[in-house]
Amino acid sequence: MNKIFFTPGPSALYFTAEQHIKEAIKNDILSISHRSKQYIKIHEETVNALKQLLNLPDGYQIGFTSSATEIWERIAENLIGENSYHFVNGSFSEKFHQTAQSLGKNAILNEVEPGTNHDLSKVVIPDEVELIGLAQNETSTGAMLPVADIEELRSRNLDKLLAIDSVSSLPVTNYDFSKLDTLYFSVQKCFGLPAGLGVWIYNERCLEKARQLQANGVYHDTYNSLLSIDKFAQKHQTSCTPNVLNIYLLGKVVQDMLTKGLDQIRQETAYKSALIYNLFENHEKLTPFVKEKKFRSLTIGVAEVAGGTDKLMEALGAKGLQVGSGYSQFKGKQIRIANFPTHSKEQMELLVDTINGLDF
Amino acid sequence: MNKIFFTPGPSALYFTAEQHIKEAIKNDILSISHRSKQYIKIHEETVNALKQLLNLPDGYQIGFTSSATEIWERIAENLIGENSYHFVNGSFSEKFHQTAQSLGKNAILNEVEPGTNHDLSKVVIPDEVELIGLAQNETSTGAMLPVADIEELRSRNLDKLLAIDSVSSLPVTNYDFSKLDTLYFSVQKCFGLPAGLGVWIYNERCLEKARQLQANGVYHDTYNSLLSIDKFAQKHQTSCTPNVLNIYLLGKVVQDMLTKGLDQIRQETAYKSALIYNLFENHEKLTPFVKEKKFRSLTIGVAEVAGGTDKLMEALGAKGLQVGSGYSQFKGKQIRIANFPTHSKEQMELLVDTINGLDF
Repeated sequence: MNKIFFTPGPSALYFTAEQHIKEAIKNDILSISHRSKQYIKIHEETVNALKQLLNLPDGYQIGFTSSATEIWERIAENLIGENSYHFVNGSFSEKFHQTAQSLGKNAILNEVEPGTNHDLSKVVIPDEVELIGLAQNETSTGAMLPVADIEELRSRNLDKLLAIDSVSSLPVTNYDFSKLDTLYFSVQKCFGLPAGLGVWIYNERCLEKARQLQANGVYHDTYNSLLSIDKFAQKHQTSCTPNVLNIYLLGKVVQDMLTKGLDQIRQETAYKSALIYNLFENHEKLTPFVKEKKFRSLTIGVAEVAGGTDKLMEALGAKGLQVGSGYSQFKGKQIRIANFPTHSKEQMELLVDTINGLDF
Repeated sequence: MNKIFFTPGPSALYFTAEQHIKEAIKNDILSISHRSKQYIKIHEETVNALKQLLNLPDGYQIGFTSSATEIWERIAENLIGENSYHFVNGSFSEKFHQTAQSLGKNAILNEVEPGTNHDLSKVVIPDEVELIGLAQNETSTGAMLPVADIEELRSRNLDKLLAIDSVSSLPVTNYDFSKLDTLYFSVQKCFGLPAGLGVWIYNERCLEKARQLQANGVYHDTYNSLLSIDKFAQKHQTSCTPNVLNIYLLGKVVQDMLTKGLDQIRQETAYKSALIYNLFENHEKLTPFVKEKKFRSLTIGVAEVAGGTDKLMEALGAKGLQVGSGYSQFKGKQIRIANFPTHSKEQMELLVDTINGLDF
């Protein structure tokens, strides 16, 4: 029996992924050249399916990198001249801040305690800031920012670029992309794919900023710089030999999601999320880490476990149910439960019932 | 019927790879965390198997990136302060030179015509050069440098780092690694794996150089900088979520190669290579692109095709045999035939016999 992975990524494969991998092998996808017509068609189909799923407006493009970590680096190198502003509320938003800082940027830090979130409406961002970074869904703590709050922030800062970490929430979060400039995610979270591919969405304003920095000589000119990624994206290609299998699989899974319907996926996510927080609020040993309900992530539920997590995680593991451990300093103290599109209602009910039935 | 891919990478999968992919799915390798004990064990096993296969001396480490293209960038950022020297004889050695140049280095170019190679013994490299780059096997032209020539060059330049592109020749080329400093390859060539993983071998001298550049403030401090890669490699991990599947598969295929024996693989490669060049020399429409025998690649045979390649490639394709087209300006004029460990003697005989029997 395979385990059911409720880990926050890598996680359970999307329920159609295994079949798509077998088809990929059968159809020689793993041997084709990334400059061949066959590859170009696959690349274009994946991008078009994603644009349709996310309802991307004109002027927004999609590029591929090896990871979201790489995208932090490329954003810092290509979209920040001197000054950036970072909303930090956990390890991943902090890592983006560190990336910009390591690359010599004046990366202004606005940090709140893990498990809480920012009241964006109260924040005034200095004029000189060129780019604002925030995690819509902080994977390490399960804190989520409402899209309306982000849009309000943006409406007051239209001269700056807005970069959104949606690594573990897309396509569940419903964005109006015209109200942000760049957003990135990883395929091993909600899309249920093997790890090894980052997806970078950017608009014309990002390209303009990159060109401006290039003209000023403060642009880091590499194979996966934004302008290079975009040049190849226009030809439905990548600047280097990519993870062809994952680009193929992403297109297939997105098409499956289109067939199922994003509304249906979002409804099921809300139902399963209610199960998770209901468990956290009613179980005597569990406490939701994020107290304020409006900030609770739909896709990653995090709970503190009284007496530590070892006994619970071991007992679940023995039943073939793998939940995630707390991140970094919360390891051993918290569990994280991924609530991704591949997790069925029945699987989530099974997990919740099992935890309720355990002595830990 | 699947095609047989003789393309120079991505190419045919190693003949055991499909089975290993199925095992990976069955054993949940695609869902495990890259910080889990299970992953750490896989990572360590892959690295140890590679060290054994390549007979790596103490003081040489192995890191993973997304591609060899990324390694060019990281070498230029982390191992060259100001001056590098590049032996160029085709598109890939030229791309490394361009990478260093784009990143603001004084990248000295020593270029010979494609299809030819450098007489390394005659080259005097300026004192100020910190790193020498060369392609032991130039994938675009099928020109190979004898290891003895490279070792002689190194013996006269012991104060400089020597960086070797062995993207499409490892593990066929037999190196004494103590006579080079850093070497890189991609898994979609001789190792017969899906694309999306670069392997970076480096020694203590590279780490020392990186530390020195960091102290001088000319080091590009990113998640996949050499020092960061090495820090995580010591823990059998990567600095970001990696292509876990490929790292797992690489270990499995290397173990299969160890079982078969590298001597056996090298003997078969030599036999198949003789078939390829015998074809090129005796067929009236074909001419080996690399004239000088000592420079002919064992793993990639390139021939000029009188009257163009369209008819030949189409006829082969109809028989399920896919050879590579000429690279860049040689497209339509040349074919490239990969001679990788996965290509059996029988497959190569079939290809040669088929070409001999065609009217093109």
